[in-house]
Amino acid sequence: MRINATRPYISESLGFAFNPRRIAVIGASRQPNKVGFEVLKALLDRHYGGEVLPVNPNAAEIQGLPAYKGVRAIPGPIDLAFIALPAMATSKVVEECAEKSVHAVAVAAGGFRESGNDDLEASLIHCCRTHHMALLGPNFLTIGNPHANFSCGLAPYEPASGSLAAISQSGANLLAILGASTIGAFGLSFYVGLGNKADVDFSELIEFAGQDTNTRCVALYVEGLDSEDAFVASCRKVAPRKPILVLKGGTSTLGWSAAMAHTGSNPGTVDNRTDRLFHEAGAIRVRTLGELIDGGLALTLMPPLKGENIVIVTNGGGSGLLMTDEFERRGINLRELRQFSPRLRDRINKLNPRPSSCLNPIDLGGAARAEEYREVVALLLADPDTHGVAVSICPTLLTPVQDIVLELADCYNSGPKSKPIIVEIQGGADCDAAILGLRRCGIPAYATPERAVAAFNILRRYMLRRYELEETSAPAVMQTTCV
Amino acid sequence: MRINATRPYISESLGFAFNPRRIAVIGASRQPNKVGFEVLKALLDRHYGGEVLPVNPNAAEIQGLPAYKGVRAIPGPIDLAFIALPAMATSKVVEECAEKSVHAVAVAAGGFRESGNDDLEASLIHCCRTHHMALLGPNFLTIGNPHANFSCGLAPYEPASGSLAAISQSGANLLAILGASTIGAFGLSFYVGLGNKADVDFSELIEFAGQDTNTRCVALYVEGLDSEDAFVASCRKVAPRKPILVLKGGTSTLGWSAAMAHTGSNPGTVDNRTDRLFHEAGAIRVRTLGELIDGGLALTLMPPLKGENIVIVTNGGGSGLLMTDEFERRGINLRELRQFSPRLRDRINKLNPRPSSCLNPIDLGGAARAEEYREVVALLLADPDTHGVAVSICPTLLTPVQDIVLELADCYNSGPKSKPIIVEIQGGADCDAAILGLRRCGIPAYATPERAVAAFNILRRYMLRRYELEETSAPAVMQTTCV
Repeated sequence: MRINATRPYISESLGFAFNPRRIAVIGASRQPNKVGFEVLKALLDRHYGGEVLPVNPNAAEIQGLPAYKGVRAIPGPIDLAFIALPAMATSKVVEECAEKSVHAVAVAAGGFRESGNDDLEASLIHCCRTHHMALLGPNFLTIGNPHANFSCGLAPYEPASGSLAAISQSGANLLAILGASTIGAFGLSFYVGLGNKADVDFSELIEFAGQDTNTRCVALYVEGLDSEDAFVASCRKVAPRKPILVLKGGTSTLGWSAAMAHTGSNPGTVDNRTDRLFHEAGAIRVRTLGELIDGGLALTLMPPLKGENIVIVTNGGGSGLLMTDEFERRGINLRELRQFSPRLRDRINKLNPRPSSCLNPIDLGGAARAEEYREVVALLLADPDTHGVAVSICPTLLTPVQDIVLELADCYNSGPKSKPIIVEIQGGADCDAAILGLRRCGIPAYATPERAVAAFNILRRYMLRRYELEETSAPAVMQTTCV
Repeated sequence: MRINATRPYISESLGFAFNPRRIAVIGASRQPNKVGFEVLKALLDRHYGGEVLPVNPNAAEIQGLPAYKGVRAIPGPIDLAFIALPAMATSKVVEECAEKSVHAVAVAAGGFRESGNDDLEASLIHCCRTHHMALLGPNFLTIGNPHANFSCGLAPYEPASGSLAAISQSGANLLAILGASTIGAFGLSFYVGLGNKADVDFSELIEFAGQDTNTRCVALYVEGLDSEDAFVASCRKVAPRKPILVLKGGTSTLGWSAAMAHTGSNPGTVDNRTDRLFHEAGAIRVRTLGELIDGGLALTLMPPLKGENIVIVTNGGGSGLLMTDEFERRGINLRELRQFSPRLRDRINKLNPRPSSCLNPIDLGGAARAEEYREVVALLLADPDTHGVAVSICPTLLTPVQDIVLELADCYNSGPKSKPIIVEIQGGADCDAAILGLRRCGIPAYATPERAVAAFNILRRYMLRRYELEETSAPAVMQTTCV
């Protein structure tokens, strides 16, 4: 429901919600597969350090913890209450939470606005706003903070701690991000699946992310914005320091109906309008879930890209070629080494005297050794005219993939980290392991040329957006079109 | 080098090259990391059933096998000779192979046309063509046939046997496909990395794939076509029965130079012209390596799509929404159930009486059970107005991902398999395992909505192409634009 500007009490409440010391699980259950069972079990399994307070009028003990008859029976303050009750039973409990001065409530049940029960949702909102209590949901999935070993909701994954904040209106798409985090070796600063997003607004979560010291980049999945002005204002505040990526769902004709049925959102905007809005906000719009995840990884790990002189280093002609094509398709016009740094070209040609080593891509040949990769990449990282390095590794029987990866990580991490490097490794299980290894060393790595280039493009779009937000001109080399 | 039409003797030679009984490895070595060592070792490690004949003038025995002083010293016929010698030493050995009536030679060394040594390459071609011996390479990576446990070259992967033929001018991009096959649970019928493609032409390999009983779909990576007419003719012969996917590298300005340096190819075509050429050939052009692999998987496993009434079934509103958006972005206009099959809508609504279950996507809700998925999917597969089913599974703590996958596979495989089904599962390691499980049961499954939709789009593009090739009209429902 529309707010005009972010509310200070919500900011404070979110601080409690993402770092709770005491959580009440209302509707805690002893029956597996019930929401109230699984949420409690997950909290306990994950060694959350705070206090967990199950509430159930019909049980004295649940999963080894003493249970309370009601919220009011709990002594002392409550930071977050997770309500695992049917929609019709929610209002009363929310009121009790308000009386108890709970900081934030998360309502799991569906059956509110998205099912036509607007009044039921409005009464929840009214109660929470009157008592300055933050409302998450209804139709809410999960909230978590890996830095505090805290996860409360229906997510089967425990992401590592990191610096990407994931704020999603959809539970499903949040789960996709959480799952990708656990198998993709990238960490999150905090995450939340908003569902109907009846009260706490995107703008407030974005400002919270702006203040959160663990967060370096914000990834949003949006179906509908209630408060466009507040969204733009918050983004413009945060985006110059922390990039904001946004994926908008429900942009298609049929998607519109589905979004209404899903989170009861009011997309109500045509797609071009959304483009303009996100642009005005200084946010970077992506088109797919893959791009949101891959781009978030690159933005959290890499320093800013400061120009378009990106050099590709490869041991496989074909993969280098696909990278080159993809850069151009994305509107990034790579240049040959001789065009922007003849001195660099000469030094590389001395190191690797192949005709193909003075072009861009620099092709080291199928038998390239780890030291050759390191020497060339070190030259590029030190060269003042080079703005970024894209590395491609193709695993022939002669290729020491693991050694190359170790040399690259060591080379990058022992330097000033003043420009981005992104790696692409295409192959089997050895390559997947190498990709994860690089990510753990702080270097974004991907399984296809198109994904690596898409990530570079996100870095580039963020730089362009930052120049705009700061009202300074981008270097001439970066003023071409972004795709 | 340009041919005007496919040559019958090449077709015969390829039969020997992909099913060799006796292979000579010329330049076989006892020194690890040498090409002649690794190729021989890989042949032996993989339990290839035929005879392996190492050739080395300075050794009596290599890796446990008796070595021959030269090709001429080998008694009996030779089907394939793999030449692991430097460029300058190749011509003489190729002549010896020709004298010995070897069916096909594969030349690993680079240093020919791609390095400006056109004459050296021309003399190889001349010798091979005069003696009706097929030449693979130079700058050649590998050739293999998983159905015969045969792989000869520098690939570290042993793909499972299946029905996708992978023909790549680039070794690197072939390795990407082979690697993806080993970790992605899809099989290949045969594969070859052509390198400079001096002699055997794409057209000849395409016709070979057309005749190969193991092949259901052909995936090509092309940098340059020598013989466009032969390419179009072969494709038009094969494509009505077996779909041909093609990825063209070197389409960018800088890529042009890189392609010249890589395989000495003559792209010499602007991109639109390539589009028209592939279209005339009845081939399906893709833009990324990911699409080539994902599309190939879908085409080998699924029956033809016969119209655009695709129905999405999901337990996650957000993932269903992203699928819907992506279908529309790809030019596939989904319709609501009530628009094309009110009877179906009523039956599904009876099974799952939620407001969102009679829309498209059909949203079964976050707590959907495996039987609910099965019942709804079974109705869709049996409904005469539904042309395809897209399933999305979102793994909440309440979702029995493994059970859903088993039910779906059983439901599909116990039916007539008359329309395609494609599944998307977004999450962590459990979801990855479920994806591989589905693929092993013959159902294409992917990790993001965009990949699942891209695969559906490939099925659709193939159907449209087939109608064109057969000069019949597509059903009205399929006449919208493809992206």
